[in-house]
Amino acid sequence: MDDLLKELKRGADELLVETELRQKLASGRPLRVKAGFDPTAPDLHLGHTVLINKLRQLQEMGHHILFLIGDFTGMIGDPTGKNATRPPLTKEAVAENAKTYTEQVFKILDPEKTEVAFNSTWMGKMDAGDMIRLAATHTVARMLERDDFHKRYTGGQPIAIHEFLYPLIQGYDSVALKADLELGGTDQKFNLLMGRELQGHFGQPRQCVLMMPLLEGLDGVNKMSKSLGNYVGISEAPNDIFGKLMSVSDTLMWRYIELLSFESLSVIEGWKQEIAEGRNPRDIKVGFAQEIVARFHGRAAADRALQDFEARFRQGGMPEDMPEVRLLAPSGEMPIANVIKEAGLTATTSEAMRMIQQGGVKLDSEKVSDRGLMIARGSEVVLQIGKRKFARVKII
Amino acid sequence: MDDLLKELKRGADELLVETELRQKLASGRPLRVKAGFDPTAPDLHLGHTVLINKLRQLQEMGHHILFLIGDFTGMIGDPTGKNATRPPLTKEAVAENAKTYTEQVFKILDPEKTEVAFNSTWMGKMDAGDMIRLAATHTVARMLERDDFHKRYTGGQPIAIHEFLYPLIQGYDSVALKADLELGGTDQKFNLLMGRELQGHFGQPRQCVLMMPLLEGLDGVNKMSKSLGNYVGISEAPNDIFGKLMSVSDTLMWRYIELLSFESLSVIEGWKQEIAEGRNPRDIKVGFAQEIVARFHGRAAADRALQDFEARFRQGGMPEDMPEVRLLAPSGEMPIANVIKEAGLTATTSEAMRMIQQGGVKLDSEKVSDRGLMIARGSEVVLQIGKRKFARVKII
Repeated sequence: MDDLLKELKRGADELLVETELRQKLASGRPLRVKAGFDPTAPDLHLGHTVLINKLRQLQEMGHHILFLIGDFTGMIGDPTGKNATRPPLTKEAVAENAKTYTEQVFKILDPEKTEVAFNSTWMGKMDAGDMIRLAATHTVARMLERDDFHKRYTGGQPIAIHEFLYPLIQGYDSVALKADLELGGTDQKFNLLMGRELQGHFGQPRQCVLMMPLLEGLDGVNKMSKSLGNYVGISEAPNDIFGKLMSVSDTLMWRYIELLSFESLSVIEGWKQEIAEGRNPRDIKVGFAQEIVARFHGRAAADRALQDFEARFRQGGMPEDMPEVRLLAPSGEMPIANVIKEAGLTATTSEAMRMIQQGGVKLDSEKVSDRGLMIARGSEVVLQIGKRKFARVKII
Repeated sequence: MDDLLKELKRGADELLVETELRQKLASGRPLRVKAGFDPTAPDLHLGHTVLINKLRQLQEMGHHILFLIGDFTGMIGDPTGKNATRPPLTKEAVAENAKTYTEQVFKILDPEKTEVAFNSTWMGKMDAGDMIRLAATHTVARMLERDDFHKRYTGGQPIAIHEFLYPLIQGYDSVALKADLELGGTDQKFNLLMGRELQGHFGQPRQCVLMMPLLEGLDGVNKMSKSLGNYVGISEAPNDIFGKLMSVSDTLMWRYIELLSFESLSVIEGWKQEIAEGRNPRDIKVGFAQEIVARFHGRAAADRALQDFEARFRQGGMPEDMPEVRLLAPSGEMPIANVIKEAGLTATTSEAMRMIQQGGVKLDSEKVSDRGLMIARGSEVVLQIGKRKFARVKII
């Protein structure tokens, strides 16, 4: 039981309440494990898969996975009409989005053992009176304890009254599903606890709650997100996934392995041992990158990705180790000649200009011909001057 | 138009917004006038009729009266289950209560010209999504502006979330009814304004709001209320209504006439003129008391009540004018002998005791035999010693 709980808690931020979960697990019956998802069309990145991996782990332990799509409020959209990016979804759009979602998720979860549920099934049957009764289960003060509500209320930002109803609906989903355990992000703690409270109110045993962290992006600093560009999409090409994962730092690698690899804790402990005894971390990284590519594109694609990666290095002659430089671009971008000079690849910008004119400059293995090329802030590029001089440059 | 508005505003605390009401009236079409009532079985007193009288006035002007019974929330009861005195009402109980209500109200309103509406008609058709959309029309901060919510929130008293939905439902009733004008008590201002706001939200012209005061009770100090005992019930016996109204002070009489008499402002102005020229206010009071008795029991009963009243005076020989005395009873009650002495009817308590023993003391025309009788705080009695000595005594 202790080992089981250790694996279950692997990577998790918080488990509530461990003694209760032990009892539920000890009963031997498969637990009903709930996780809720938006009904919007997703394009998943590895950050999203942290939670789905945990579902898979529970699935492999024999528990019943309830993949809940919160379509009821999605079909309402933004009732204040202030958020144009949240139009009401039609039943058809929800079904279409759910298909997109599950197609991606079933690369991780076993479709045969996953119950996809839609909360419109029970919420759509509720009338206004039921909604009033649900609202009566909690107080305004309790709701204003939620971090974001508290901040907005004290900061004079408007909170529309229906926003108080949404956590109750999310909590009621746990009642409808008779969930034993709900998984969610750390940022969802308040809503996850609503499920516990409402189950108590409706005379059900209270669900346990397992909160997973938000995954750091490739930069190792910010949360992985599409808008920050520091993500690995699960639908990206094998070579891109492989290359991006090979680029992460050795420290971040262990974090990714903890949250994304399906290898057991004892195997990972073995790897750490090997590194301590002198093995190159790059070997571990290659194995991990292959595991992830294989998960989404199959084993053959993973092998090809590794071959391509190594070939690029051989052909490009790019050294594994090259100086890494960070350059400040206060205006938001920097001319390439300045980048070359500042990175120490030439002594002057004139020399950099001359090298470009002679065709001796490559940016990410592509010959540069435009001497006026501007490199934007946020870019991370490999510059090559002549045959031997390399630098990995990040414009900040 | 000015005279019309003056009559409409007669007795009212506040009219919002007068310029808008002028426009609506100027259109010439009958206005839809809404007033909302609880679905609980009522036993009306004159305080309740202030608002109903105003409805009657509007009805006589040709406007359409919407007598709205808020049965939707009544059938939900107290969803927190904390208030045992608010059990959910059945459809049958609502119908039964509505009948009791209208039987009383139709002594004032013309049943032929009154539309009795039940908000379950539209609220019962709302689903949870509709409720959410309704909740989205207002913010938490706006709701916490309501006086009682504000006090409870800042005072740490719980407010259940559904309580925020009730003013919205009440406001939505105005939308469903397409009300032009809503009448309500001054204490209902927030909810009445919700109707205006929601009509605006739903693209309707906003209703005007006419707020009526809470009527003072017979003591002229507190609001008329059953629990304070200072009320005149409309189902009380003719003699009781008549006697109670004859007992009010000359000052309070004018207030009652303003809010309860159907005589026009100009007629009332005439009476005031007569009093100024020396007429006895008692004559006016008699006429007013008869008007009220006749309203609820018919003209013949009113005439009988006057005859009975005068006969009682003749037989009892009670003078119209007698000293009025207020006595302080710090312990909550006072022995009758002390009351007699303090009221100046005897020189000593011993003399008072002797008078009682001789059968020479009457309390409200009844002979007093118990020398140990205690008079409780709050009592208002007429004491008579011998043939000639009278006092109206109030124990405070």
